[in-house]
Amino acid sequence: MTNGKSNGEAGTSQALSSQNVKALFDSVEAFLFDCDGVIWKGDKLIEGVPETLEMLRSKGKKLVFVTNNSTKSRKQYAQKFQSLGLAVSEDEIFSSSYAAAMFLKTNDFPPEKKVYVIGEEGILEELELAGFTGLGGPEDGKKKVELKPNCLFEHDKSVGAVVVGLDQYINYYKLQYGTLCIRENPGCLFIATNRDAVGHMTDLQEWPGAGCMVAAICGSTQKEPIVVGKPSTFMMEFLLQRFQISTSKMCMVGDRLDTDILFGQNSGCKTLLVLSGVTTQSVLQDPSNNIQPDYYTSSISDIFELLGP
Amino acid sequence: MTNGKSNGEAGTSQALSSQNVKALFDSVEAFLFDCDGVIWKGDKLIEGVPETLEMLRSKGKKLVFVTNNSTKSRKQYAQKFQSLGLAVSEDEIFSSSYAAAMFLKTNDFPPEKKVYVIGEEGILEELELAGFTGLGGPEDGKKKVELKPNCLFEHDKSVGAVVVGLDQYINYYKLQYGTLCIRENPGCLFIATNRDAVGHMTDLQEWPGAGCMVAAICGSTQKEPIVVGKPSTFMMEFLLQRFQISTSKMCMVGDRLDTDILFGQNSGCKTLLVLSGVTTQSVLQDPSNNIQPDYYTSSISDIFELLGP
Repeated sequence: MTNGKSNGEAGTSQALSSQNVKALFDSVEAFLFDCDGVIWKGDKLIEGVPETLEMLRSKGKKLVFVTNNSTKSRKQYAQKFQSLGLAVSEDEIFSSSYAAAMFLKTNDFPPEKKVYVIGEEGILEELELAGFTGLGGPEDGKKKVELKPNCLFEHDKSVGAVVVGLDQYINYYKLQYGTLCIRENPGCLFIATNRDAVGHMTDLQEWPGAGCMVAAICGSTQKEPIVVGKPSTFMMEFLLQRFQISTSKMCMVGDRLDTDILFGQNSGCKTLLVLSGVTTQSVLQDPSNNIQPDYYTSSISDIFELLGP
Repeated sequence: MTNGKSNGEAGTSQALSSQNVKALFDSVEAFLFDCDGVIWKGDKLIEGVPETLEMLRSKGKKLVFVTNNSTKSRKQYAQKFQSLGLAVSEDEIFSSSYAAAMFLKTNDFPPEKKVYVIGEEGILEELELAGFTGLGGPEDGKKKVELKPNCLFEHDKSVGAVVVGLDQYINYYKLQYGTLCIRENPGCLFIATNRDAVGHMTDLQEWPGAGCMVAAICGSTQKEPIVVGKPSTFMMEFLLQRFQISTSKMCMVGDRLDTDILFGQNSGCKTLLVLSGVTTQSVLQDPSNNIQPDYYTSSISDIFELLGP
């Protein structure tokens, strides 16, 4: 399957309807949901989500949550689901913070090397759970630099990877630290959790996403990162190990064309775009858009509305 | 003249020597100097600079200083020269902070519109001198964001341009402010003072340059900026107005291939790379480098050494 259309007419998506919803539902064993813009916006649940998830579970569908937001660990996401009244367990959650730690593990990153983090608590927590030593993160958000003669900004020479994700505490200290590690520590990896330009960090508006911080480090190092979140298919390996379901029997549901839908298509899943997040119908149907999901609909609650309880 | 070699053998630069220095000297009426890595490193003067500049002036050469560092205004640069014992007047200095203000002026930017600044004092000062209202800058370096439900981050709808330069006080507040202006204010300009990846903000080491902050805003807005500093030739128009010298009788002297030397070549100047800053001889001579200056030497003091007082 390519980035183009996978069934129906080439280059167009079908609106989800009472005519096609049953075929989609019957052909899918696992629904993969993005969270931000699909399940919630900021800290507000999107209408109709609880009944929809409950209905899917009651019909025997596997539910998986795949989020590019690296600010939380899987454990913290499970708590967030719980606080919103949704019963989702840690092992149903695949976050880009977890993906960063798993990337290092899979690639035999030496545990004696350290990982510098431009990002938030979620990355540090996942690194620790995977047995790695993280530096930086929120703590370095308070640090200041002094541009004075004879002052040398020191960095840890044993840092072997810099992980960059969304960081609301981004500052010049962290930018210099990460830049020095990547430029001066031989073989130091540059890992991006994801490159989303913006995201609904609050319910009312969008904010710069990890793509902003990642681009900053690209700008200072003139290097390109390894991306572990969507649309990279790295997380799919772990998903397949856990669920033993062919990707053709999965449907990726998300609000972003360039991450969610592309991830689904790159992995060979069916794809459903919801318009409850960052993508509008006019963006989807603009001639300049070349990422067409199989289906689109306004919100995941339409699945419930169209199929019934 | 192209990005390639302009005289001598194609694709190679000549080391400055007692054989070729006189021809260069005689053919040039104005020397254009980059500052950081050429005149000083951080706050330290590079050895041999005062006698070299003095000798050039005494032989009737015009001296011009063209810097991509936007943290200071032209007035502040004149003070810096003075503090280092060099007599350089404000109108011999062309900084990217000045270029940003001149770009707006030249393009009839409406004075009732405001300019949001991700950068330092120099940009704000030049904007004010040109009659524009700047917002942001160092002051917003203290501001924090709160990612809370029902909180709306407000921005000024009358901002018609965002100017991004080097900013040691970069934070998420400014990134969100600049991003909102560019994404939401119709026709809002995105102007970069320059895109240098790193620079000698201190004498002992390099730090992320404006290219880091500019890339961050490219990452969140998915737009490309208008660049007013080197290698853009925008500043050359002002230089020519002031000095009335043909660019073929100018020599651009700098330590960076992708800004200084490219700027010189794009403008039709002779070019001299000095190895006293960010570029090493091995980088210059690496097969992957396709920017070849006419001449290279270790430091501008070689001009003095080779020609005598």
